[in-house]
Amino acid sequence: MFTDATTEEIHAVMGSAWKAFHVYRKCSLRQRAGFMRAIAKEIENLGDELLRIAGEETHLPEARLRNERARTMYQLTSYADACERGEWMEIRIDTAVPEKNPPKPDIRKMLVPLGPVVVFGAANFPFAYSTAGGDTATAFAAGCPVIVKAHPAHARTSELVASAIVKAAVNCYMPAGIFSHIHGASFEVGKALVEHPHTKAVGFTGSFAGGKQLFDWANQRKEPIPVFAEMSSINPVFLLAGKMKSAAAEVAKQYAGSITLGAGQFCTNPGLIIGIDNDDLQIFIAAISDEIKKMNPGDMLNPGIFKNYVERRANALSQEEVEMVAVSVAAPVTNQGLPTIASAPAPAFINNPLLHQEVFGPYSLIIRCKDINEMIDVAKHIEGQLTATLMATDDDVRNNDDLVEAVKDICGRFIMNGVPTGVEVCLGMQHGGPFPSTTDARFTSVGADAIRRFARPIAFQNWSNELLPDELKNENPLGIWRTVNDTPQSPKGGI
Amino acid sequence: MFTDATTEEIHAVMGSAWKAFHVYRKCSLRQRAGFMRAIAKEIENLGDELLRIAGEETHLPEARLRNERARTMYQLTSYADACERGEWMEIRIDTAVPEKNPPKPDIRKMLVPLGPVVVFGAANFPFAYSTAGGDTATAFAAGCPVIVKAHPAHARTSELVASAIVKAAVNCYMPAGIFSHIHGASFEVGKALVEHPHTKAVGFTGSFAGGKQLFDWANQRKEPIPVFAEMSSINPVFLLAGKMKSAAAEVAKQYAGSITLGAGQFCTNPGLIIGIDNDDLQIFIAAISDEIKKMNPGDMLNPGIFKNYVERRANALSQEEVEMVAVSVAAPVTNQGLPTIASAPAPAFINNPLLHQEVFGPYSLIIRCKDINEMIDVAKHIEGQLTATLMATDDDVRNNDDLVEAVKDICGRFIMNGVPTGVEVCLGMQHGGPFPSTTDARFTSVGADAIRRFARPIAFQNWSNELLPDELKNENPLGIWRTVNDTPQSPKGGI
Repeated sequence: MFTDATTEEIHAVMGSAWKAFHVYRKCSLRQRAGFMRAIAKEIENLGDELLRIAGEETHLPEARLRNERARTMYQLTSYADACERGEWMEIRIDTAVPEKNPPKPDIRKMLVPLGPVVVFGAANFPFAYSTAGGDTATAFAAGCPVIVKAHPAHARTSELVASAIVKAAVNCYMPAGIFSHIHGASFEVGKALVEHPHTKAVGFTGSFAGGKQLFDWANQRKEPIPVFAEMSSINPVFLLAGKMKSAAAEVAKQYAGSITLGAGQFCTNPGLIIGIDNDDLQIFIAAISDEIKKMNPGDMLNPGIFKNYVERRANALSQEEVEMVAVSVAAPVTNQGLPTIASAPAPAFINNPLLHQEVFGPYSLIIRCKDINEMIDVAKHIEGQLTATLMATDDDVRNNDDLVEAVKDICGRFIMNGVPTGVEVCLGMQHGGPFPSTTDARFTSVGADAIRRFARPIAFQNWSNELLPDELKNENPLGIWRTVNDTPQSPKGGI
Repeated sequence: MFTDATTEEIHAVMGSAWKAFHVYRKCSLRQRAGFMRAIAKEIENLGDELLRIAGEETHLPEARLRNERARTMYQLTSYADACERGEWMEIRIDTAVPEKNPPKPDIRKMLVPLGPVVVFGAANFPFAYSTAGGDTATAFAAGCPVIVKAHPAHARTSELVASAIVKAAVNCYMPAGIFSHIHGASFEVGKALVEHPHTKAVGFTGSFAGGKQLFDWANQRKEPIPVFAEMSSINPVFLLAGKMKSAAAEVAKQYAGSITLGAGQFCTNPGLIIGIDNDDLQIFIAAISDEIKKMNPGDMLNPGIFKNYVERRANALSQEEVEMVAVSVAAPVTNQGLPTIASAPAPAFINNPLLHQEVFGPYSLIIRCKDINEMIDVAKHIEGQLTATLMATDDDVRNNDDLVEAVKDICGRFIMNGVPTGVEVCLGMQHGGPFPSTTDARFTSVGADAIRRFARPIAFQNWSNELLPDELKNENPLGIWRTVNDTPQSPKGGI
């Protein structure tokens, strides 16, 4: 339906983004925030037509899409608030000390935008992690133009959302080129975008193969650029003895829900559950089996993802010592992910890298450990993850420090007695873990700190107050939190 | 004198660092700070013997070495203060909102150390950017063990400083393996260190070829790791018309000093001066020539750097349209860098990439532009730099916005009416610019923000107050600045 962008089109788009960058970065924080809020408004104005098209393309239920649209609008407005508050700019002011030997000059630091950001949206979040999703919103907040390559699986949805962004841009008198939307089912389009000299950063949400490829291209450029790729995660859940003694069946029920939520198509889906092989684990297994059998399969996003699920699930199940524990009793239907629980002993998991790979869909593998030491060993063999979870009493945590430390090492978000699905949009959120869950664990893609992925510090030395950017002026005209001579100062305070 | 570490030795060192990491990261901020202050003390205790050895190895004058030692101790103690203050941990607390639908969980984020950091010191700063320099100090503050590969050009100095660190570690009851010091003149040692699975980050100060190689190795690992490499910079200086009208000779004098300071062996040495070709520039050229002719050549760090200077200088001077402007009248002596000023018209610079390369030593190239537009064009053709400087009146800045923006784009520190040499150690400092001056412009290697290169955020979701790290507990027992529900809170405040 849509044709791939040609090399000439990509070049034109990037040239236009580059021009827009030089205008947009001078827009005030208030102007940027106004633009972001206008996008939220225009997305709302698309009305149910947007939900209908997205539903057709992604097979996601209407209620889910309605929620995701609300989340997307919330992201835009809450990041707009953060953009205006300005703390993300990390302003540090050191005033001059002329009597020092040698004299200490006046030095003031703030973040400035990197330049045009190329965004590759996610298949599983047509709104919140796609065209006007978190990467786009935080890039706009940072002062960067955005070029979105539409996800081919929801290209029409992407077109609609793009039209909302363009409308908001026009209404807010934003420069042409602040936002571009192009199509590209082939990898050449992505490659050309990442390699273009005007591209200064990349945001990606998707598979490991896709994210790693973009990362490699970006690093092989003459001028390497940062890529924040959120790739794959199996979000291990550790079942500790004390908790299991009192709540094995309850935890099983909670997790049957989390594993099958949205047909398991979340980056935070719990794909690995690690327990100690005793009576309590048998209760857990029996209870989760009962639940899973009753679960109705859900529509998967698209035939590619369905095919991938079928293949990876079959492959995992065929591995030595892997047993099928439970599967939905519903008759399998094309394009529907069959809820499935498998199980394997710890050594089989430790020694088989294939079992560490994400099976994207309503699938989870229970690892049976003979004792806590084997559980620690499993934790140490798990690659970097977006999240990890302890189902544990306070005493479980106090008495198992080695396990807690080993689990902390592998995750970006560390959950106690909850499920990893559900990523709150707030400043405290960390959505980014050690490789291979993301390409740089030092950043997050959710929460206002995500803005900083697309900005860099610049220090102004010995500038007169009048010529400094407003953010750095003595009188603090923007009223933002700043650190002055090593001490944080309230927005009311000038120097 | 020293033999290269073998593969077995490297493996043993990294294993020991990995073990130490699991102990050291649990040390409190106060303990880390105490250790850092003890290192400063032990360096002082090495006394003049340290200066003598360093002088023999680097040919740097005693006064310079004395200052650099003081700077190194100041870095250690001021980063220790910052470590204890804890703001670098970027604590963000979002308290639960149970009545929200779905309920918002309690989420609290802080930075945690990445793991063992490999540090490659600089030839030109045997103390401040070497064994116990900024990279080592900030890695310790972050909670990371450090493995230093001694710079072969000052290996004995490095041994002495390493002995001070080891002494401090023992006195402070630090775990064995918190610090290791190895030698390696061959590139294999560096490669093995960067590729070791226990290495989690790299700090480097040196040549572009060296830094880029480490960056590539790090990205080609199965698990890529961050490399902060500070590589090369020619630190362009733009002479604007208004300023030149009143102060051409004065600026010339100031810059003759900056160019030849320390035989030009600073990463912030001004290697490129861009002016508009008019009578004022002729006054500038005449005045800087007078100064340069009178300058005595200084000893260069070592024969390799001397040879490199001779070759690169000759190569630059042999390029088409490059004219020698002035050279010190002193007779050339082996191992001494001859102060030299050359000049070329703007198009020759724009079209010849060789003229963009650093000539490490007391050398600077004056670019003659026919007008401000050609000056802007030059700015747009300059690669990323640690610093850029405007010699300008306030009106020059007001009336030349396009130039100011173009210059801002290429630098990490933007200086007005000063010289780039001299890097203040303070929170407002940015020592890190766009590629190729560093490998990630989003970080700095000077100032307490440098700690964050070696740490990553982790969010604790739904943990009981008692089990949380002290940094995140309600009552704020460490007394650090934290952001609670989007509002920065003073160290006095609990929740």
